[in-house]
Amino acid sequence: MTDTILSSATKEVVIGWGRPFVMIGEKINPTGRKLLAEEMKAGNYSRVEKDALAQVAAGAQMLDVNAGIPLADEPAMLARAIQLVQSITDVPLSIDSSIIAALEAGLAVYKGKPLVNSVTGEEEVLERVLPLIKKYGAAVVAISNDETGISEDPDVRFEVAKRIVNRAADFGILSSDVVVDPLVMPIGAMATAGRQVFALVRRLHEELHVNTTCGASNISFGLPNRHVISGTFLAMAMSHGMTSAITNPMHSDVKNAVMAANVLCSADPHCASWIQINRDPGNVQEGEASGRRGGRRARVGFGQAPA
Amino acid sequence: MTDTILSSATKEVVIGWGRPFVMIGEKINPTGRKLLAEEMKAGNYSRVEKDALAQVAAGAQMLDVNAGIPLADEPAMLARAIQLVQSITDVPLSIDSSIIAALEAGLAVYKGKPLVNSVTGEEEVLERVLPLIKKYGAAVVAISNDETGISEDPDVRFEVAKRIVNRAADFGILSSDVVVDPLVMPIGAMATAGRQVFALVRRLHEELHVNTTCGASNISFGLPNRHVISGTFLAMAMSHGMTSAITNPMHSDVKNAVMAANVLCSADPHCASWIQINRDPGNVQEGEASGRRGGRRARVGFGQAPA
Repeated sequence: MTDTILSSATKEVVIGWGRPFVMIGEKINPTGRKLLAEEMKAGNYSRVEKDALAQVAAGAQMLDVNAGIPLADEPAMLARAIQLVQSITDVPLSIDSSIIAALEAGLAVYKGKPLVNSVTGEEEVLERVLPLIKKYGAAVVAISNDETGISEDPDVRFEVAKRIVNRAADFGILSSDVVVDPLVMPIGAMATAGRQVFALVRRLHEELHVNTTCGASNISFGLPNRHVISGTFLAMAMSHGMTSAITNPMHSDVKNAVMAANVLCSADPHCASWIQINRDPGNVQEGEASGRRGGRRARVGFGQAPA
Repeated sequence: MTDTILSSATKEVVIGWGRPFVMIGEKINPTGRKLLAEEMKAGNYSRVEKDALAQVAAGAQMLDVNAGIPLADEPAMLARAIQLVQSITDVPLSIDSSIIAALEAGLAVYKGKPLVNSVTGEEEVLERVLPLIKKYGAAVVAISNDETGISEDPDVRFEVAKRIVNRAADFGILSSDVVVDPLVMPIGAMATAGRQVFALVRRLHEELHVNTTCGASNISFGLPNRHVISGTFLAMAMSHGMTSAITNPMHSDVKNAVMAANVLCSADPHCASWIQINRDPGNVQEGEASGRRGGRRARVGFGQAPA
């Protein structure tokens, strides 16, 4: 199986099948967060600091850092945010920008091996981003769209992903350092958005043997009780081979679904992490329902004859 | 796609891919419920009545009815329970017993087309149960174990299921009236229990084109916060093609996961059911997180250029 290794100055995180799913905290991103954008523009990064610590405390193994504020000096702000976050946490970061100069400014100050978010299949973007990935020894998120846009056909998106992996190889970047984002559309706008991702992730996992990630919150855009939709989506995608996501572990519906799916994908040996986070005796309902329904099956399952 | 049609005297329920997942209420089962067993033995069926109404109110589209009490007259009790439940609800039932005489007593009084739970791949069982299914025009749950026990290899279990479907055909029973149970083991005892089921359900769905069901509570046996595990498991299994389960819709973690997975499997047109059950404004967090993370992606998704 393919392992993608990321690091900070002192800590390594591995994205890979059969390992615990890697949650990359999504919160440090001024897009749509007016207050955070204004504060960052004014040089006040206290909220960045708070969001970093809170997400790590909630279980984020990595953090995404984005400083995309219109009309601001994004390269300088992204570099500053990265230095700040690296000074107060030890998790590896995802350097997130659509501006190449900002990615480079972030890479220049980063300590360790980061994930760069992202490159698309557009040739012009590939030719500008991939040399940076190689130069700094980073890993990169590959978004499966290109000049023709985003196909609704998972097989077309698979071909785009494959082309990015091949182009990365041309630049001397291993496929284990390419983490493919299958692109998640809002399910409220496109009813097949979930099934497309499941099919594509399975092909990426089984045929291209690459790790995968996604912006999980998109799936539930506009829906009520959306964190249940996002968490359930991640669990389902994990069962098809998805190995990481940019998401918010501070929402318990998301975190619980991911932790339960770790158990169900054999990525939580002896259910140890699950048992640890659910130690509250109020949650323990051992044997309760299984006595009801599971009785006969459980006996069959454990080699005793049915009544 | 294969549709399995079940009915009561007045109502039809269809199990099939692309349709809302069918939750078959598990509660009417004295196995492990000492009080219920004692009451039923004493001729007091008030709890059966209460459990039937509560499960239907919680969203069960069908109910499983089991009267398996040691040293009791199971055929008479099962028939009585079925008549009672049919007199107060209109959902189709699953007649659940490992005693053939009890299945026949239940079938004799049932109004409509029930699901019979269950037949295994053991030749002796097949030869006794399948003629009853044909005689009464019922559908049947086929459990994928045989004389050799339960294999841990999903491909072996697939072959057992295939053999049951073929034997049913010998008796004139359509494969659309065979609902395969892949057999769910406790994940706490067998770390691969989830992945085995996902792989097997996918083959049953894609190659054998049959509907599937399972006793979902087994997966979480012995674990804390078990309903999150059971619900997450069902959602994951649904993404591989599972179309029904014997479960408890009264647990919100199970019901929410199933309802969310309906949305994500394109089985809830316009997310109408999801929106309806989540109308509480307190649950609505529209746009909240997607503005953060999803911002850039959502814009790409809807055809606008990235910043």
